[in-house]
Amino acid sequence: MCRWNAYIGEPLLIDDLLYRTKHGLIDESLHSRMGAETTNGDGFGLGWYPTDRPDDPARYRSVQPAWNDANLRDLAAHIESPLFLAHIRAAIGSPVQQTNCHPFRHGRWLFVHNGMISGFDRMRRDLMLAVDGDLFSGIGGSADSETLFYLALTEGLEQDPLGAMERAVGTVERCAAEHGVDNPMQGTIGIADGERVWAVRYSSAHESRTLFVSEDVDTVRRLHPENPRLQELSEDARIIVSEPLADLEGAWHAVPESTALAVTRGGLESRPFAPAPAA
Amino acid sequence: MCRWNAYIGEPLLIDDLLYRTKHGLIDESLHSRMGAETTNGDGFGLGWYPTDRPDDPARYRSVQPAWNDANLRDLAAHIESPLFLAHIRAAIGSPVQQTNCHPFRHGRWLFVHNGMISGFDRMRRDLMLAVDGDLFSGIGGSADSETLFYLALTEGLEQDPLGAMERAVGTVERCAAEHGVDNPMQGTIGIADGERVWAVRYSSAHESRTLFVSEDVDTVRRLHPENPRLQELSEDARIIVSEPLADLEGAWHAVPESTALAVTRGGLESRPFAPAPAA
Amino acid sequence: MCRWNAYIGEPLLIDDLLYRTKHGLIDESLHSRMGAETTNGDGFGLGWYPTDRPDDPARYRSVQPAWNDANLRDLAAHIESPLFLAHIRAAIGSPVQQTNCHPFRHGRWLFVHNGMISGFDRMRRDLMLAVDGDLFSGIGGSADSETLFYLALTEGLEQDPLGAMERAVGTVERCAAEHGVDNPMQGTIGIADGERVWAVRYSSAHESRTLFVSEDVDTVRRLHPENPRLQELSEDARIIVSEPLADLEGAWHAVPESTALAVTRGGLESRPFAPAPAA
Amino acid sequence: MCRWNAYIGEPLLIDDLLYRTKHGLIDESLHSRMGAETTNGDGFGLGWYPTDRPDDPARYRSVQPAWNDANLRDLAAHIESPLFLAHIRAAIGSPVQQTNCHPFRHGRWLFVHNGMISGFDRMRRDLMLAVDGDLFSGIGGSADSETLFYLALTEGLEQDPLGAMERAVGTVERCAAEHGVDNPMQGTIGIADGERVWAVRYSSAHESRTLFVSEDVDTVRRLHPENPRLQELSEDARIIVSEPLADLEGAWHAVPESTALAVTRGGLESRPFAPAPAA
Repeated sequence: MCRWNAYIGEPLLIDDLLYRTKHGLIDESLHSRMGAETTNGDGFGLGWYPTDRPDDPARYRSVQPAWNDANLRDLAAHIESPLFLAHIRAAIGSPVQQTNCHPFRHGRWLFVHNGMISGFDRMRRDLMLAVDGDLFSGIGGSADSETLFYLALTEGLEQDPLGAMERAVGTVERCAAEHGVDNPMQGTIGIADGERVWAVRYSSAHESRTLFVSEDVDTVRRLHPENPRLQELSEDARIIVSEPLADLEGAWHAVPESTALAVTRGGLESRPFAPAPAA
Repeated sequence: MCRWNAYIGEPLLIDDLLYRTKHGLIDESLHSRMGAETTNGDGFGLGWYPTDRPDDPARYRSVQPAWNDANLRDLAAHIESPLFLAHIRAAIGSPVQQTNCHPFRHGRWLFVHNGMISGFDRMRRDLMLAVDGDLFSGIGGSADSETLFYLALTEGLEQDPLGAMERAVGTVERCAAEHGVDNPMQGTIGIADGERVWAVRYSSAHESRTLFVSEDVDTVRRLHPENPRLQELSEDARIIVSEPLADLEGAWHAVPESTALAVTRGGLESRPFAPAPAA
Repeated sequence: MCRWNAYIGEPLLIDDLLYRTKHGLIDESLHSRMGAETTNGDGFGLGWYPTDRPDDPARYRSVQPAWNDANLRDLAAHIESPLFLAHIRAAIGSPVQQTNCHPFRHGRWLFVHNGMISGFDRMRRDLMLAVDGDLFSGIGGSADSETLFYLALTEGLEQDPLGAMERAVGTVERCAAEHGVDNPMQGTIGIADGERVWAVRYSSAHESRTLFVSEDVDTVRRLHPENPRLQELSEDARIIVSEPLADLEGAWHAVPESTALAVTRGGLESRPFAPAPAA
Repeated sequence: MCRWNAYIGEPLLIDDLLYRTKHGLIDESLHSRMGAETTNGDGFGLGWYPTDRPDDPARYRSVQPAWNDANLRDLAAHIESPLFLAHIRAAIGSPVQQTNCHPFRHGRWLFVHNGMISGFDRMRRDLMLAVDGDLFSGIGGSADSETLFYLALTEGLEQDPLGAMERAVGTVERCAAEHGVDNPMQGTIGIADGERVWAVRYSSAHESRTLFVSEDVDTVRRLHPENPRLQELSEDARIIVSEPLADLEGAWHAVPESTALAVTRGGLESRPFAPAPAA
């Protein structure tokens, strides 16, 4: 069901987070320790905001497993960004194709999801129907996560990401009830607009995939005086991950169930997350 | 907008039609002479019925251009089939991905389309909605052709292919009128069930892509006594093509506008084709 | 370092060995239990001899991990063969590309290798030089295994597979000594010519990857009266695998170190294997 | 036999040259007007130097035809570079794979080639043998162009690009004579080191593929006062192309046969090019 990472802070070489980190995302594509599946080899996606262009995210998506993608290696080693999301996929149900790789994108917004909508096969038609007519043509693939993103856009994600997400999840849970599907929602979600990152940890059964956010950089440096790379991170940097990066042990704060985070450079807020009625 | 070929007759090595033929389909992927686009390099698909298994079509689809696909070359050189459809794609609008390559498949049925539904972007939501709920989850990609196939399935293609096709095209034309789209339907269509092949040449503006069917083998042999390969074809064989194969000139019968063919081994029937109201 | 399977016997649907078997090769691509790496997602290859065409092997190779390759699924479900080799790859050192996927092919011969040539980077030039001039242009990729195959062809594999393999391995070991590389050879090897299969288990350090051959079908049936699928196997069938298929426990004979097998339909011979001087 | 473009000047959005230009390289991948083949759909490669990092070129290579590669579109739209080479491939003889796509790279050097080495199949072994032992392991694919690059590296390309290229071509021509191959060398070559670009137009038969360099920007602006985009180009910019970009007609200077160019920001030198003996 995937894993994802997000970074926000001073422009950082993407490589620093993806490859050079022990048990980083590329390593997790091969040997995830905490995920539902250990291998996440059904594709990779990277969305990054160029420095000084927070309204224009770039994206690279590939069906090649992250660990053997030569282009990805090259890109990560040469691109710096102040905000990026990376996602590795373990496909359940929908085909492995570029259009089913995360992040999904709409204007300045990027979206990743680690999890699934159970019974999506049965609900797909109704859920796609619930997507606003003007947005519908943006749906390029067949993944449940993409439809979830479009439901959130329909519910006003661009004005109120977390509120819209709560309403979208509510829509899914109501639809599931109609179709006799239990506990449809599963997962963690990442959303970015070029200036902020939001993360959600929620599932209908309240047994969600793991999610962690880094402590403030100052704290992390005090915990790990032996790690020179931590000097590279800016004071206001924050990293959100599906599972902790190995060489920064103790520097992670687990995000509780049914919780959402709003992260800016230098700021971190937490609030409850619960499905809500449609707008 | 693609090109396609169909073969029905005694089991034939797929290679014989695809590669060894002068100006055959593989050649057309690089240099089509009669198509709307000369290059058809946005993917390839092959659907074939194993000898003695007319209810179980196999399929190979790839985003690699047909002319450089090593696997396709190998498959064609080693597989014999009494009925197969091959399609090369020139994508308009929808992504180049395996799930958008033809033929589309449902049970024993295969479907290829050379053409497009103009304004599909605007109509996609309504057309997908018109697909029967039980069939909806079979839609794997985002191509207009695939939705057209599922509309036809909804209209009873499995019981009455041509009638269902007329009703599906009717649905598209009515939807287009509602959305202010002129002349939505364009193209030629191929359908197979393992024992018969149907072909349709129709467009709303009555200026369709080309379509040809071979004369009976006896006639072709008399026209081309110099061609030894024609001895390999069985008496009851028939080939349907978007454009004539070069080394069998004069042996092709052009299918008129608004016409449908029903082809069996040894039999060929022709009838008019016109959009009809939904069932 | 890969895993491979070989089948010889009455024509069998390839699917029966690859997919329907518990802990079969496709499963091993995701979760190998005995291999050096647990994931083997750097490509897949299948070589099969069509029934009645033992001199003309077909081949399908893909860089998509075996577990998510839709085309492979389709092919395996529709192709029967009396002799086929399948290989899943975990790449070490050389790029993931179709030309580096096994099996390698030369005329009627197929070749797979689970293992590596340590220090190949340093030895590659000399080893490629040792390949016969007329054969050299057949080398399509950059994998150590492919060069090993071409060395064996140079040493007369087409006349004496095991003898040639011993001489080729000897060449590699001598070259390694010159370059200061210890224990260069590692692995198991599979060779087929359309009528027979040869398997080798050898490594310079005498700690080879695992290799198993099935007991004769009669014995296997007696051991597993509860397994209906075993009725499908012909009396003379034999399966060679890198690791045992889970639902046929106790029916496997481990191939010892430094041993080679020669397998025909109904026959199995074993003999020692040791590197030899070049011819 | 491919087409290529190079840009040197103030950092420019890669998109400006590849996509937004009428009859630019992406268009040429589908419909080249002057090339030996009209379609160049066997892969694409982009090598670019990040601003302020002239010693560290990044590279993206793909076997997807340039015109339908979504990742390429995205990358080009988001990456600025003061020096980049782009290449579209029409493969002759060697497989379509990422490692056979140009540009080839060695340290800070990038290399593209439009053309071929006739009879490479016969000469490949000897030519690969002529590559320096320490460089040999860098050869990742099987393309003639890549071997040519490595021969030039062997002849000292890093110290004297044009001299080394002359010696490498000399090696090829001498080898061809030994193998009875006439007129082996064909094409145009592009080389970059992060600060300069060299271009060569040479073929053994003196009938080379076309090559053009832009006039100085001042001249181009005077010729095309109606074109606003030309204001974006820096005074010192220079573009080298296989065929002229359509909307800058009259602004191109054809490079003569057997000629080499050395281009820096603001500087352009021309000199004869002739094969030379090995160093």
